[in-house]
Amino acid sequence: MMKKLTRTETAAYLLERDHFCILSHCRPDGDTVGSSAALCLGLRSLGKTAHVLFNEEVTERFAWLHEGLTKAQPEEGDTLVSTDVAAPGMLPQAFQPLLGKIALRIDHHGSATSFTELELVDSASASCAELVWDVLKEMGVKADPAIAEAVYVGTSTDTGCFRYANTTAHTFQTAADCAAAGARVFELNQTLFETNSLGRLKMQAWIVDHIHMLRCGSMAVCAIPRSVEEELGVTEDDMDNISSFPRTVAGVCIAATLREAKDGHVKLSVRAVPGYDAAKIAAKFGGGGHKGAAGAGIDLPIAEAEQAVEAALLEECP
Amino acid sequence: MMKKLTRTETAAYLLERDHFCILSHCRPDGDTVGSSAALCLGLRSLGKTAHVLFNEEVTERFAWLHEGLTKAQPEEGDTLVSTDVAAPGMLPQAFQPLLGKIALRIDHHGSATSFTELELVDSASASCAELVWDVLKEMGVKADPAIAEAVYVGTSTDTGCFRYANTTAHTFQTAADCAAAGARVFELNQTLFETNSLGRLKMQAWIVDHIHMLRCGSMAVCAIPRSVEEELGVTEDDMDNISSFPRTVAGVCIAATLREAKDGHVKLSVRAVPGYDAAKIAAKFGGGGHKGAAGAGIDLPIAEAEQAVEAALLEECP
Repeated sequence: MMKKLTRTETAAYLLERDHFCILSHCRPDGDTVGSSAALCLGLRSLGKTAHVLFNEEVTERFAWLHEGLTKAQPEEGDTLVSTDVAAPGMLPQAFQPLLGKIALRIDHHGSATSFTELELVDSASASCAELVWDVLKEMGVKADPAIAEAVYVGTSTDTGCFRYANTTAHTFQTAADCAAAGARVFELNQTLFETNSLGRLKMQAWIVDHIHMLRCGSMAVCAIPRSVEEELGVTEDDMDNISSFPRTVAGVCIAATLREAKDGHVKLSVRAVPGYDAAKIAAKFGGGGHKGAAGAGIDLPIAEAEQAVEAALLEECP
Repeated sequence: MMKKLTRTETAAYLLERDHFCILSHCRPDGDTVGSSAALCLGLRSLGKTAHVLFNEEVTERFAWLHEGLTKAQPEEGDTLVSTDVAAPGMLPQAFQPLLGKIALRIDHHGSATSFTELELVDSASASCAELVWDVLKEMGVKADPAIAEAVYVGTSTDTGCFRYANTTAHTFQTAADCAAAGARVFELNQTLFETNSLGRLKMQAWIVDHIHMLRCGSMAVCAIPRSVEEELGVTEDDMDNISSFPRTVAGVCIAATLREAKDGHVKLSVRAVPGYDAAKIAAKFGGGGHKGAAGAGIDLPIAEAEQAVEAALLEECP
């Protein structure tokens, strides 16, 4: 039977024990690395033995947070805790044999699958790091710069540096705690956010040159043929969330981006500011989503798909 | 004799009085508009009569914050308060006759010129809005969404949405208060930060296509001839802080941007991540600055200037 814990119960559970091994998820992001590092450092600051289980998928961008904290294997008697792991499938391949042995899951994914006996899950939390930070405070951990930076990385990366819709007062409060405890906020922001791959920048440059403005620039449509992605040599990482870019042109209220997949299938993504309805456009092509962001698949050659989307925009937004 | 006030003394001073007229600065930014709006709304919430003096220079971007708060002229007996005004010269032309009549200045510019009898100045504060917020709290003002949004606009715009080096724990704490009081943080961020002019995007696209990488992409140089700016039709607003852009390419540690002025004179701007020294490069051309950002003027045709800067970079950064 899975049991849901509060922050206070989680703190009590951790305080009662010693010897911890903390697990992060596959394709690790700033939140799973930051959360696991913060929890490990917090436990150590109370005199406990704690390690992060070495995750070979952690990239250079975040590996510094795990420096000096990892070990290759859990030991007999270790309490296993996962951070930011939403489902068994999110565990790295190498951690799969540990399934069923993980005692506690700390996570903020609402639609997650339970796979541990105990869990602290708060889907209202923008990041797992905020949750870990709350638990550490309950345990009486005093923040030092290392803990603060781990929490800050998790919190800031999962909110796009406080710009995403998930950002709450609690997120800002956590960031305030981190800054007060000595996190190098400016330096971290420069590295984490004020950087774009050259491939991404080339793609954005291409979009600026090929974007089609409608209705005096309040609507934008951009169709990206497969051949362009191949010529520019962009990776999937470079293309991540590219559909949000055309909406950032000043004056654009609703923007549609069409991407041609390898098989010629076209993927439509629509982004809109408040007052416009992206889902209405996507619905015209059998798709769906929210007012702010929606998508659909279109079985037409990309040039024809573009024309159909332009017609839909002009019809829906008078 | 100018007298410096604390936040508490400022709160007491404002509480003692009624009938206020609040002044913003010329070329108004989010902080002067947000600070003046927040102060006006806060005073009104305590039952006092308060207005913002109509500033015709306020642009559409921020004008909504002053809606319903302005009047055209101060009245007999009004206490005049300026927010975010660093010097007499920063007052709009239309406000100049009021010099000498402004009772209190609330500001966060350290190098400011005193021009009022009383002042609350804290140069450690990232924004004037944070200061105003502190004073309102001391006065017992309860934040409502309108006050919270005015404070949030000031705080977020003066810190580049919490990314600039001036961001402090107090800044995040203020943002937390604003979010808790109902400020639409996500919507404001989208409008204020997730937007670029088409001219700016075209300039960035040109830079991506013409940037010159040195030392395996750790250094970047970009020379922007006058003719390119004219062809693209970019404005000075579009070019604002453009020299920070080449540094944002992933992997670039130090970036030099050269811009050709109308008279052919070349302006060099260098930006560097921690560990690199921009000032050292600028000094080679008789300029100066900080390790992170420095500049110089170069009296050479832009192509020759670019070669000289590349040579300087290769020599200084082995």
